[in-house]
Amino acid sequence: MAAPDDKALADATLGAAAAELLGDRRLIIATNRGPVSFATAADGSLRPRRGSGGLVTALGQVGHHVPITWVAAAMSDGDRRAAADPKLLRAAAGGDDSVRLRFASVDRAVYEAAYNVIANPLLWFLQHQMWNLPERPNIDAGVMRAWERGYVPLNEAFARAVLAQARGDRRPRIMLHDYHLYLAAGPIRAARPNAVISHFTHIPWPPSSIWLTIAPPIREGIAIGLLANDVVAFQTERYAHNFLRMVESFVPDAEVDYEHQLVRRRRRVTHVRHYPISIDVDATRRIAGSRAARRRADQLLGGTRERVIVRVDRLEPSKNILRGFLAYEALLQRQPRLRGRLSFLAFLVPSRTGLREYGDYGRKVQNAVDRINARFGMSGWRPVQLFYENDYAQALAGLSIADVVLVNPLVDGMNLVAKEAVIVSEHDAVLVLSETAGAFDQMAGGVLAVAPADVVGTANALASALAMTPDERRKRITKLRRGVEDEDITWWLRRQLEDLAELTG
Amino acid sequence: MAAPDDKALADATLGAAAAELLGDRRLIIATNRGPVSFATAADGSLRPRRGSGGLVTALGQVGHHVPITWVAAAMSDGDRRAAADPKLLRAAAGGDDSVRLRFASVDRAVYEAAYNVIANPLLWFLQHQMWNLPERPNIDAGVMRAWERGYVPLNEAFARAVLAQARGDRRPRIMLHDYHLYLAAGPIRAARPNAVISHFTHIPWPPSSIWLTIAPPIREGIAIGLLANDVVAFQTERYAHNFLRMVESFVPDAEVDYEHQLVRRRRRVTHVRHYPISIDVDATRRIAGSRAARRRADQLLGGTRERVIVRVDRLEPSKNILRGFLAYEALLQRQPRLRGRLSFLAFLVPSRTGLREYGDYGRKVQNAVDRINARFGMSGWRPVQLFYENDYAQALAGLSIADVVLVNPLVDGMNLVAKEAVIVSEHDAVLVLSETAGAFDQMAGGVLAVAPADVVGTANALASALAMTPDERRKRITKLRRGVEDEDITWWLRRQLEDLAELTG
Repeated sequence: MAAPDDKALADATLGAAAAELLGDRRLIIATNRGPVSFATAADGSLRPRRGSGGLVTALGQVGHHVPITWVAAAMSDGDRRAAADPKLLRAAAGGDDSVRLRFASVDRAVYEAAYNVIANPLLWFLQHQMWNLPERPNIDAGVMRAWERGYVPLNEAFARAVLAQARGDRRPRIMLHDYHLYLAAGPIRAARPNAVISHFTHIPWPPSSIWLTIAPPIREGIAIGLLANDVVAFQTERYAHNFLRMVESFVPDAEVDYEHQLVRRRRRVTHVRHYPISIDVDATRRIAGSRAARRRADQLLGGTRERVIVRVDRLEPSKNILRGFLAYEALLQRQPRLRGRLSFLAFLVPSRTGLREYGDYGRKVQNAVDRINARFGMSGWRPVQLFYENDYAQALAGLSIADVVLVNPLVDGMNLVAKEAVIVSEHDAVLVLSETAGAFDQMAGGVLAVAPADVVGTANALASALAMTPDERRKRITKLRRGVEDEDITWWLRRQLEDLAELTG
Repeated sequence: MAAPDDKALADATLGAAAAELLGDRRLIIATNRGPVSFATAADGSLRPRRGSGGLVTALGQVGHHVPITWVAAAMSDGDRRAAADPKLLRAAAGGDDSVRLRFASVDRAVYEAAYNVIANPLLWFLQHQMWNLPERPNIDAGVMRAWERGYVPLNEAFARAVLAQARGDRRPRIMLHDYHLYLAAGPIRAARPNAVISHFTHIPWPPSSIWLTIAPPIREGIAIGLLANDVVAFQTERYAHNFLRMVESFVPDAEVDYEHQLVRRRRRVTHVRHYPISIDVDATRRIAGSRAARRRADQLLGGTRERVIVRVDRLEPSKNILRGFLAYEALLQRQPRLRGRLSFLAFLVPSRTGLREYGDYGRKVQNAVDRINARFGMSGWRPVQLFYENDYAQALAGLSIADVVLVNPLVDGMNLVAKEAVIVSEHDAVLVLSETAGAFDQMAGGVLAVAPADVVGTANALASALAMTPDERRKRITKLRRGVEDEDITWWLRRQLEDLAELTG
């Protein structure tokens, strides 16, 4: 664990970076999903609900360090009503003004088009290379309409909401986030040419051969839209490189400088950077160390055999859960002596259950689990235990008792489970990690690497992990843990603030 | 048309390049499919059959210019028997020794594993980005066995067959081809350190994020295997770049020099080049100008309305035939005045009809055609005419009468239909071409570009093509035709011979 001194020092350094960038300004952050959303209660009143999700959790830390104004999309009718009620927003944000909450509000139909036609199905699937390209996507008239009358106006609404928070400031400091907001910087830049604007993409940035398949107005709109930022940031070097290649391919009047990682266009310079996101180490430890989590860990351990394999994932195809079970099945098949001695605990969080692709995938996962349990199970031993619920403390409890943690996504912007696992592990867990997870770039030296489609290789990695000596396990996790402690969420934020201050100074 | 003088000059230049590279040697070419295969007749005798396919056609030209020894895989039991009968091989090759035919022979089970487990399903699908990654491929024990006991031994057999043709020559000149032979250079290099070896990949080379998904022994085997060549060649700059990035990612002891497009590893240098393949312009003209083809063209034209859209493709998913019809449907939908005035002739060649994916895709294509014809067809007018057969002369006849040629593959190594179309066109056809086809790099200046998933954009491009003035059409096709005449199959071969001579001189 980082010593308290280190922690205080890190906070002070972050504070200094923030002060240099911000002066007496607030940092303006814009994301699709905000820290609070509003539901309309039976009596017609608005009830705030804390948001969840990795991005909200990560950015929630930011407000501890610098005063922020957080602009989020009004996703529900409740949000749209709350948007006009500053008092309510203030109360919901905690009342102390360290986080000031605002909504970017558009008509429901506009939002639905942006969110449910463009951002989630088209961009998210595309950037995770999840399309079965011979058949989908089809950029038809409906998709183009959703782009022009949904995604574009939503981004313009974000720009207006941000500008409303920057009144009287010729150089507001603005951080835009993720795949919902690729176009927001343009109209902000037009109104405030000297604004300091960054955009961070949390999901993968695929190579140009993927972007090449979709409509030019969309891919060029995205590339040019992002170039209105001062800094365009990604999780990894590979994603940043892919963005530079994309600009070179699709923006004829842009000049790409690979050596200095920047783009020149129309007398403006856009820096392209990568900042791997991380976790709040202390908060993660606090939750994992809570009495409830400790008790749950003991219960889980009581129901397992000698060695425990754990995975924690949203239940969806990009997490590659199916091949993880196929690898486990292959392992039990070829090493009969492991039967009865292993437990595989899978903590799967329900995700977008309304989407057909997700539902189909969930059924296939369940079938694989049933097959493995039927094939190898014995009296008193279930080879796979599935936990299908959203219980973060329980998931951390599971990670804490693991001998092996399997994180084998097809592709993943970062993957914070890999980082949580090394922080909360109490049994020196061995981490088996996909090379296609963003986290692999930082953690390669301490994990067992797997290629996501490689079921044989994944089975081999599980076998190696189970056979690893205690010394080697200790050595690896110590190294990994130090890495996550050093490069935590504060580090992620501080480097961005420092770069913004320096690049725009 | 290139003037006869130009043609004679091109041949002479090619001859000079060949002489410089070869001296009095023969050029050794190795491909999976050879120019002749053998079937066993009812009486037990072996009957030669001319091979087909773009690669065989293209390389068939090479023998007109330089003496070659052509090593192909024994694909059938007839081939395996013929492999041991030099007299038969000589007769089948034409008898004049300008093309000397040899087989690389392995047991049928070995060949089947290499061809039907690794090369076609795994590598071809992967390199065309056609996997639905959440579910396939699964690199399981069967796939790894097919790699180790199929693909590897087949490549070793090719190396032995090549070396048998290089007896007594310390510097044989060897050109290996395509995705069946990624590993052949290694054992040749081990036996002949000074051999001059090149490898040309005819299909796309995807970015590393695609290679990252499959088993390290396969992807690293391929990268290292190719580095045993002096020249590793691709169709386009993008594919060559992707290969360099792949080497950087997967071969730790390799040093990649992007500026000079080469790789240094263990004191060897491998040059990475791109040579866009092309057609034999004269041969194409000869077939299109035959009396049978001219008659067929007249018949086809008699059955069409004012404007004719044509496509020619193997019927398979990478050709993106379905979205082409969706675009045509959208066009008829939104421009009612075009109904009854357009004809869409689709010449679709049966391909791998035994593969489930191909069969499913074929049915979807047929359904789309039936739907469009039912929806818009009128007495005497069928909006789409489908020709499902392998008739090259008929396809050229179709291209010759086209007003618009639609070539919209998802991804394509080169696509020779685009080049044939501009050579045989008699109506100054407008070419609508995917940016993801290798041919796009050479032809961008004269075509209407489309992104393959962009149905709206494709419909727009068809509309623009149909509305283009005769002058503009003439200007464009003149430019495109000159490009294909200048950069024809002779040019493709000559540049490779020249580079090999220079790089290894």
